[in-house]
Amino acid sequence: MLFTEKEYETRVKKTKKRMEAAGVEVLIATHPANMNYLTGYDGWSFYVHQCVIISLDQDEPVWIGRNMDGNAAKVTTFLSEENIRNYDDDYVHSPVGKHPIDFVVDVIKDKGWEDKIFGVEMDQFYFTHKTYQILNDSLPNARFKDATFLVAKVRAIKSAQEIEFMKRAGKIAEKVMQTGIDAVNVGVRECDAAAEISHAQISGTDEFGGDYPAIVPLMPAGDGIDAPHLTWSDRRYKENEPVILELSGCYNRYHAPIARTVYLGEAPKRMQEITDLVIEGLDETLDFIEPGVTCEAVEEKWRNSIAKGGLVDASRLGYAFGLNYPPDWGEQVASMRPKDKTVLKENMTFHLIPIIWQDDIGFEMSSAIRITENGCEEFYDFPKKLYTK
Amino acid sequence: MLFTEKEYETRVKKTKKRMEAAGVEVLIATHPANMNYLTGYDGWSFYVHQCVIISLDQDEPVWIGRNMDGNAAKVTTFLSEENIRNYDDDYVHSPVGKHPIDFVVDVIKDKGWEDKIFGVEMDQFYFTHKTYQILNDSLPNARFKDATFLVAKVRAIKSAQEIEFMKRAGKIAEKVMQTGIDAVNVGVRECDAAAEISHAQISGTDEFGGDYPAIVPLMPAGDGIDAPHLTWSDRRYKENEPVILELSGCYNRYHAPIARTVYLGEAPKRMQEITDLVIEGLDETLDFIEPGVTCEAVEEKWRNSIAKGGLVDASRLGYAFGLNYPPDWGEQVASMRPKDKTVLKENMTFHLIPIIWQDDIGFEMSSAIRITENGCEEFYDFPKKLYTK
Repeated sequence: MLFTEKEYETRVKKTKKRMEAAGVEVLIATHPANMNYLTGYDGWSFYVHQCVIISLDQDEPVWIGRNMDGNAAKVTTFLSEENIRNYDDDYVHSPVGKHPIDFVVDVIKDKGWEDKIFGVEMDQFYFTHKTYQILNDSLPNARFKDATFLVAKVRAIKSAQEIEFMKRAGKIAEKVMQTGIDAVNVGVRECDAAAEISHAQISGTDEFGGDYPAIVPLMPAGDGIDAPHLTWSDRRYKENEPVILELSGCYNRYHAPIARTVYLGEAPKRMQEITDLVIEGLDETLDFIEPGVTCEAVEEKWRNSIAKGGLVDASRLGYAFGLNYPPDWGEQVASMRPKDKTVLKENMTFHLIPIIWQDDIGFEMSSAIRITENGCEEFYDFPKKLYTK
Repeated sequence: MLFTEKEYETRVKKTKKRMEAAGVEVLIATHPANMNYLTGYDGWSFYVHQCVIISLDQDEPVWIGRNMDGNAAKVTTFLSEENIRNYDDDYVHSPVGKHPIDFVVDVIKDKGWEDKIFGVEMDQFYFTHKTYQILNDSLPNARFKDATFLVAKVRAIKSAQEIEFMKRAGKIAEKVMQTGIDAVNVGVRECDAAAEISHAQISGTDEFGGDYPAIVPLMPAGDGIDAPHLTWSDRRYKENEPVILELSGCYNRYHAPIARTVYLGEAPKRMQEITDLVIEGLDETLDFIEPGVTCEAVEEKWRNSIAKGGLVDASRLGYAFGLNYPPDWGEQVASMRPKDKTVLKENMTFHLIPIIWQDDIGFEMSSAIRITENGCEEFYDFPKKLYTK
């Protein structure tokens, strides 16, 4: 177990408080990050249906998953054996219509929860429409409310140990970005640079090993510079092309994302100007951030700062992040953008990632921060500049 | 574009044929593998809502995704610009209830499809209940049918070029597994072995670069040997412990999964016996496989073969695989297990992965195959044996 039993108990208690406020008696958490957060469960088993259930009338959560993953639940969670419930392998991708959620329904009935008000994660990728259909059809006396962000909102404020994990991820991120900048060179295949980066991410530092980030290295380059979610091919880098590296360090599923831009040759003058404007804007914005400020105010600060130099950021400035699994390290509960009125609190964590496309130039540079008692601090120490080579 | 326009047209034609047979007029494909298969679209953008729509009354599919990913759609697909439809960034994780599926509804109305019979992937992880709810509420005259496996069933039979991609993935898999066996040693941190493996996966061979597999290296070891979906930690390997390596080569999103077991020391006698029984059973089963045979018959052959030596395989023997994205390289449409009556056809592809837990021993060894005209062939040439060191 990575955290103390007491820390898991606190998380469950906070979740129950939110459940009460939302009028939810039983919560079904299907997102792997929520399952991990509430019980410690870890494992690449989220390609089959699984969940953690929290009921107001029971202390411990219940983990439900595939038989062979019950062993991982025993190793990684604090749960007693009666609250680890495994379904047989013939529920998995069944040719005769058996469905893992049928088994979840059985557990719910066994626990006497069939008439309760349920919270389910209606817009999370690990909660399919079919899951809802089966629950709804099999539990005619139950009611269902949307709890897509219920646990994510608890996750948004990190504990001291979570922050420590993210600082370690930050140390890994420093090594990862330096590896990436060193690896990207004219004549090198994109895949070979990506391989070096991935090696650095997973091996981590001598002190603490790395984990797989929830997103693979994103490294748009050359003609694809304006397609930020392209990965890599076996194309070779050419002279005079830009390469964006959006990477992350990861420690025990906690992230520290970082983006920098490299130019293979002498950078166009406008690119250096954009870099300077972004650095100035980021610095002004970081200075502005403190508890009590809203996400939309942070974005406004940023927008006004870069507007002085004629820049426009086409997408949100940043988003909450932390503990996560593929396909996203973002927490989706708060973004620095217009109309997001989330008030910043101590130990919230954000990835600020300016993305500029202008005058045929693509540019990214980011900062991953923790809100402190009276400001913010970055998770890594990596020079903000345009890297040319 | 990785395939010819003609190949994409053939895929769309086959999909439309299945749509007609299923009484579906408009198909909404949300699974990233289906989106790639039907249009070529590639990119790590599947953490936001996106889809490909195929309508019987239009030749070309329509790609719908986030603004910044429209650029990747232009680079990677054969679609004309009018069929690449981008939604603005303020639809992404909106704080004021804007939802990307609202935009999908707008496109559907724009195309005049609002009264059609729709097929949607009700039990795919990229199709949330909320997606269904919005479609259903916004299109009162539409009808919705479950098309979870409609495209996956087309994907199940591979073209010549797809097989060639999988053979290249097989070449990468050979290198990857050798790297893994070499890296795993007493005193080595698990994360450092995983880093070497990932490096080999992504860099590929000198001839062709690797891609990220849909599943990270799975490497249960020691006390966790019975938890097959554990990844790695910074624990150091000890003497006299078993290590299972379940890995894959990947080329342009096409996989070649491979599993082998390593023992760090002199293996227990029973482990060598289990290895011999599994090899014999696998060889007998591979000899038995040919077009016309059912999946359940293949599993029965396997079960009977290992039963002679007193072995039981607790999970399905194998599953269809090919083109895919996280969280799974399996295709979910066919498994080698009791009651699966899928009839094998030429150019179907399966991963046969015996998993044995018996007498405190955990053991895996696998084979990735293509069904040939009159038998089957493996995608890689890697000795089946127990690796001791």
